[in-house]
Amino acid sequence: MANTLFDFGMIGLGVMGRNLLLNMADHGFSVIGFDKDGSKNEALEKSASAGTTVKGVQELSQMVSQLKSPRNIMMLVPAGKPVDDVIESLLPLLEKGDVIIDGGNSHYTDTLRRVKYLRDQDIHFMGIGVSGGEQGARTGPSMMPGGEKGAYENVRPMLEAIAAKVDGKPCVSYLGKEGAGHYVKMVHNGIEYAIMQLISESYSLLKHGGLDNDQLHEVFKTWNEGSLQSFLVEITASIFLQEDEVTGGRLVDFISDKAGSKGTGKWTSQDAMELPVAVPVIDTAVAMRTLSGYKDERVQAAGIYPDPYKTFPASTQEWIHQVHDALYFSTILSYAQGLAMLHQASGELGMEIPLPEVVSVWRGGCIIRSSLLEVFTHAYTETPELSNILLNEEVAGIVKSLVGNTRKVVAQAALSGIPAGGLMSALAYFDGFRSEKMPTNLIQAQRDFFGAHTYQRTDTPGTFHTEWGQH
Amino acid sequence: MANTLFDFGMIGLGVMGRNLLLNMADHGFSVIGFDKDGSKNEALEKSASAGTTVKGVQELSQMVSQLKSPRNIMMLVPAGKPVDDVIESLLPLLEKGDVIIDGGNSHYTDTLRRVKYLRDQDIHFMGIGVSGGEQGARTGPSMMPGGEKGAYENVRPMLEAIAAKVDGKPCVSYLGKEGAGHYVKMVHNGIEYAIMQLISESYSLLKHGGLDNDQLHEVFKTWNEGSLQSFLVEITASIFLQEDEVTGGRLVDFISDKAGSKGTGKWTSQDAMELPVAVPVIDTAVAMRTLSGYKDERVQAAGIYPDPYKTFPASTQEWIHQVHDALYFSTILSYAQGLAMLHQASGELGMEIPLPEVVSVWRGGCIIRSSLLEVFTHAYTETPELSNILLNEEVAGIVKSLVGNTRKVVAQAALSGIPAGGLMSALAYFDGFRSEKMPTNLIQAQRDFFGAHTYQRTDTPGTFHTEWGQH
Repeated sequence: MANTLFDFGMIGLGVMGRNLLLNMADHGFSVIGFDKDGSKNEALEKSASAGTTVKGVQELSQMVSQLKSPRNIMMLVPAGKPVDDVIESLLPLLEKGDVIIDGGNSHYTDTLRRVKYLRDQDIHFMGIGVSGGEQGARTGPSMMPGGEKGAYENVRPMLEAIAAKVDGKPCVSYLGKEGAGHYVKMVHNGIEYAIMQLISESYSLLKHGGLDNDQLHEVFKTWNEGSLQSFLVEITASIFLQEDEVTGGRLVDFISDKAGSKGTGKWTSQDAMELPVAVPVIDTAVAMRTLSGYKDERVQAAGIYPDPYKTFPASTQEWIHQVHDALYFSTILSYAQGLAMLHQASGELGMEIPLPEVVSVWRGGCIIRSSLLEVFTHAYTETPELSNILLNEEVAGIVKSLVGNTRKVVAQAALSGIPAGGLMSALAYFDGFRSEKMPTNLIQAQRDFFGAHTYQRTDTPGTFHTEWGQH
Repeated sequence: MANTLFDFGMIGLGVMGRNLLLNMADHGFSVIGFDKDGSKNEALEKSASAGTTVKGVQELSQMVSQLKSPRNIMMLVPAGKPVDDVIESLLPLLEKGDVIIDGGNSHYTDTLRRVKYLRDQDIHFMGIGVSGGEQGARTGPSMMPGGEKGAYENVRPMLEAIAAKVDGKPCVSYLGKEGAGHYVKMVHNGIEYAIMQLISESYSLLKHGGLDNDQLHEVFKTWNEGSLQSFLVEITASIFLQEDEVTGGRLVDFISDKAGSKGTGKWTSQDAMELPVAVPVIDTAVAMRTLSGYKDERVQAAGIYPDPYKTFPASTQEWIHQVHDALYFSTILSYAQGLAMLHQASGELGMEIPLPEVVSVWRGGCIIRSSLLEVFTHAYTETPELSNILLNEEVAGIVKSLVGNTRKVVAQAALSGIPAGGLMSALAYFDGFRSEKMPTNLIQAQRDFFGAHTYQRTDTPGTFHTEWGQH
């Protein structure tokens, strides 16, 4: 064993790092992990399947010296300074052509900086977004790698082996230059925030319509067997069945409504504004999680502002059908906004993100996997440079079949006082997007009126200013 | 004249800088301006009123040497590097205790950095947000100063003299430490974005209801004479009358709907997410301006997605009344979100922003001045630490009287396919804010399900994790 060189190294043996290594080992690669915490090395070796080559060490140099050249080393450590620290401690131990991979949730601008810094030292740096949680890491995650194409080729066999598979195709593919991997993962998470918000609104709308947890389970289970099939709808169905060990009731009823976040949804919205590109459903999802934290104020406000009279004109079955369509519609709109963001970032940030590959990678293993991604894969395969999936014929056909019921649900939510900001943002974006003329001409008039910011005309090129109010 | 020392100096003699100086001179202060461009110095001196002391010079040192000590110097130059350049060129010429004021639209984090940098050199640095446009600068702007209280006292007489006045009270007041002035101005602009978006939606809703430009003028003119009285409603009324010199029609109909922006709305949304605080109407306003830029895609989408059948059940008079209430409601919500942001930033960023003074300063001179600010001034005078104006009794009374019609307008917009994202965001925020229980418990369940992010319970303190799906 003294002379065995390993195929792949991992820095940081938390659950994610350990599971990815075990997954690789199960696919025939020899793997070595490093963690200062000896118990984690032990846990790694103990969990290895019989006949696999898995080792844990407590010294970084021990790991590096036992890797095949060029070395492939991934780190799974908290974003920020820890990543830079790992890079600095690795540098003296590496040789030209080695590959360092950051598999954590780093901001793409950090990744961009690190790629440049290490390129000068002939070390390849890749940012890879990994989605699927702990379970996904062990059995098949979705992976979003960005960086140098050549470096990707080095690690491609391992990544393809461990990735989730859909129709035999691995859910990993080269997704663009420099920070592209982390960028795609960020937008993935933004879409995830949006869809979770939309599902929570649908839950609320159905609950107000009189459904109990058993019925909610049935509805989401049925939806998951149809066009809304997706990981998030699937687990939602399951959640409504979960019993509460303390009270004997259903756990969902005893969970606090203060929603947490790790900040990647916020990043998506902030960066979208920077490009700029409009992602209002994601913005709303971020705002609503924030609003959920205002518990004391909400309790106070509930005492001041009574509910409007709630009346549901539709029968329960009709209502369920309408909410289904509204959720389906707004889910498509969430993907549309996120994918439009990737389309624009691809060009403007020079990352050359292949949209057909992105939607294909998302089909399995990740949190936003859904049968809709099959539709989008067709759309982008047909038109790789599609600026917005709403302009694809197949998607348009689906959207047109859903928008009528979406309008009814939004109207009903508004009249009944049920907060539905995500659904509303989806519809408002849609109606703006399909408006040949928006009323923003008035905004331009106002800006020129008070700030001499000038305007353009519809009939003549050029920039104009008017001395307003002289009539 | 050789020995005359001036009260106030200005760097950058564009229209804003010139008008502020002339305004000061009219109030009896002797002023000196510096601009490398000799024609601007000439323009300054030529525009001076008879009997006032106004001078323009082409050398910075010439200006500095002719100022009374401690020197009060304002710059009005583009945000970013130009501000730092001015500081560096000033530093060798100044003495301890002198005051430099940045009157431009700098980001508050830059102001914060400059305050610290100059404090180490015993120079006071203040950031002052100035609103009111060119005309306001000449006749009475609203000013939002932040920085050291002592430095403010130096310049207070000049600022109070030139500011807009409401009931004899100048629209300027010390608004907090360090970057507070520019922070308040940023949020002011965010609210401005929101209200402009809401007015444009109201315009669209009324236009779809059959109103022509003359009728729109009448409606906004009437609104400006009632509870919606405000600068933005006033100029909107005026805009509908403006004739187009080219076609003889109304100018508003020939203005392109691609809306521009200078980025301060975006800053507000991005920083709100950072705090975090929910400002979804501002977020929506930013997104809709961005969407307005997708002209080619919108034209394409308009060909794919037909309008739904539009029917307005209300009579025109009823519809106007309903839209009035919706605009009034959502305008209050825009202020509520912006002011809640200031409340939170005041504490968390340590800027100690006095909300009663902020709303008082905004009553005159600035773009978002409105009679509503009188109501808010009462509210904050009563409860300076009010976390959200929706919790004030007087405001709540108004909001309750408006929300019914707002619901009807949002429902109508949804059914008729008229984009109304701002109104919808206002309503969704309101309905979330007045919800004792939001459906975000489901989001927490999902997060714990797929990412082991843990959750809190409604009945027991602590943090919990469940192995979901084992039923």
